[in-house]
Amino acid sequence: MVTAKVWVLKKHFEGFPKTSDFDLKKIELPNLKDGELLLESVFLSVDPYMRIVESNNPAFTVGAFVVARSGWRTHFISDGKDLQLLPSSWPESLPKSLALGTVGMPGLTAYFGLLEVCKMKLGETVLVNAAAGAVGSVVGQLAKIGGCKVVGCAGSDYKVAYLKKIGFDEAFNYKTVVSLDEALRQASPDGYDCFFDNVGGEFTSIAINHMKKYGRIAVCGAISQYNDTVPQKGPYVQVPMIFKELQMEGFIVTRWNNRWEEGLKALLKWVVEGKVKCHEQVTEGFENMPMAFIGMLKGENLGKAIVKV
Amino acid sequence: MVTAKVWVLKKHFEGFPKTSDFDLKKIELPNLKDGELLLESVFLSVDPYMRIVESNNPAFTVGAFVVARSGWRTHFISDGKDLQLLPSSWPESLPKSLALGTVGMPGLTAYFGLLEVCKMKLGETVLVNAAAGAVGSVVGQLAKIGGCKVVGCAGSDYKVAYLKKIGFDEAFNYKTVVSLDEALRQASPDGYDCFFDNVGGEFTSIAINHMKKYGRIAVCGAISQYNDTVPQKGPYVQVPMIFKELQMEGFIVTRWNNRWEEGLKALLKWVVEGKVKCHEQVTEGFENMPMAFIGMLKGENLGKAIVKV
Repeated sequence: MVTAKVWVLKKHFEGFPKTSDFDLKKIELPNLKDGELLLESVFLSVDPYMRIVESNNPAFTVGAFVVARSGWRTHFISDGKDLQLLPSSWPESLPKSLALGTVGMPGLTAYFGLLEVCKMKLGETVLVNAAAGAVGSVVGQLAKIGGCKVVGCAGSDYKVAYLKKIGFDEAFNYKTVVSLDEALRQASPDGYDCFFDNVGGEFTSIAINHMKKYGRIAVCGAISQYNDTVPQKGPYVQVPMIFKELQMEGFIVTRWNNRWEEGLKALLKWVVEGKVKCHEQVTEGFENMPMAFIGMLKGENLGKAIVKV
Repeated sequence: MVTAKVWVLKKHFEGFPKTSDFDLKKIELPNLKDGELLLESVFLSVDPYMRIVESNNPAFTVGAFVVARSGWRTHFISDGKDLQLLPSSWPESLPKSLALGTVGMPGLTAYFGLLEVCKMKLGETVLVNAAAGAVGSVVGQLAKIGGCKVVGCAGSDYKVAYLKKIGFDEAFNYKTVVSLDEALRQASPDGYDCFFDNVGGEFTSIAINHMKKYGRIAVCGAISQYNDTVPQKGPYVQVPMIFKELQMEGFIVTRWNNRWEEGLKALLKWVVEGKVKCHEQVTEGFENMPMAFIGMLKGENLGKAIVKV
């Protein structure tokens, strides 16, 4: 018998999440049935990554690492469905936690969002906000690999310095610029072909006026609005959409589930070659998971926020 | 020497246009130079349609009808560039004013907006607002030809009756329904694949929540906002855009200038076959042009608003 620690939500968030909204429980797991596996969490994020501890399923061997979606818990019994083994070409020297970040769901979000939604082309100018986050930092680096000029915005000078270090052409701290409008104009006086939007809200209302004719906006996230109790309002988008003939498209990465292998292979190659740099914000200890989650929503992380169990 | 009457704008509109914003002037036109033509207005809309009165240009014969963009005036001297002759297959019995409406720019807007922006497919459900207008009435009828279910909204019971007469599956008066949200749900409980948006503003904020997953919104016009002195605000669009993975695209019909022949040929064929019905709101007299323009902005027209000189 194994005791699993599990974080549960006591009640739905009202406004911004608080640590008191979460409860840490212990549960006894039953013995394995035929075909089942016992997983042990090694790294967690919103989508946890686990190690196989016990297996009654011939497709998985004990000790293998898999990506699983089984909630915030230390142990989990799985029937083996929907588990993803790491790519076979994963180098021993590469941290396995990257399977939750640059070579995982956030990296794929950057990859498909830029290629399929922004339809980024050589020589274009790409704007990305929350640029030092798990997705944004990959967006900027992929756009550089694709021969584009990249402008990134982040919420601290430390993050801005990081963006410049990993190759962004222009980067600024949106919290300290006198005028976002003016900062966007200075960073690219000709405007932007592609805008990879992780933030939404007021940022987007200003950025939309800096799009070039036929510009494309990939709506990946809206972190400025997720914790609103009353929906915020801003200027209607139709007039700039018409006059600049803009495209705006929302997307969720699972749309390309059938192409994950292609995406992961490409990302892994660029990481191994050093063309895409990775940074992780690691919080130690399963007990600190709500704190890591709240910190991520506040933008305290540089790169992917990971919890090491 | 010919005296032309010309409507000029005395000053830029503040808020909604008033007849006092316009001035009717008379100007003497010079004699024709080589290659020039004298045009006489027959029907006017925002883009005037004219007859050739005198020609020093071998490509155009006196008495021919052309579509020209030369402002609000009775006569105009042209060098022949950017004039469009009517399609050669235009039947004698068909009103030539349709070249300003269903078989002209508004019809092409419906055609390319539905085919290229909405990417309408057989069996889908299409929503169109300002549905009794020059563009909307064609949108609905083309969607029916394409095998779709069509829901239209208009601002009077008379217009709603017209929409049902020309084949819309569902139509309602958005000004008198108790709840637009409820009316949209009743008209298509499963939601909408395509939304051809001529209105923008609050209508769009409500309609966006009725889109199906992967729905497409063609932003053609925003008549609810054109005369705002202070831009209106509404809920940000990012959250519904992401969770339903919606596409929204603004467009101007001139994007497909190189395909106008294709579009006009298709529209002319459907009109001649009786598959697309046309209605025009004709105002008699050049002097009444500002009134016709203001009436159009107020939604007083059924079908295309035309001024007969």
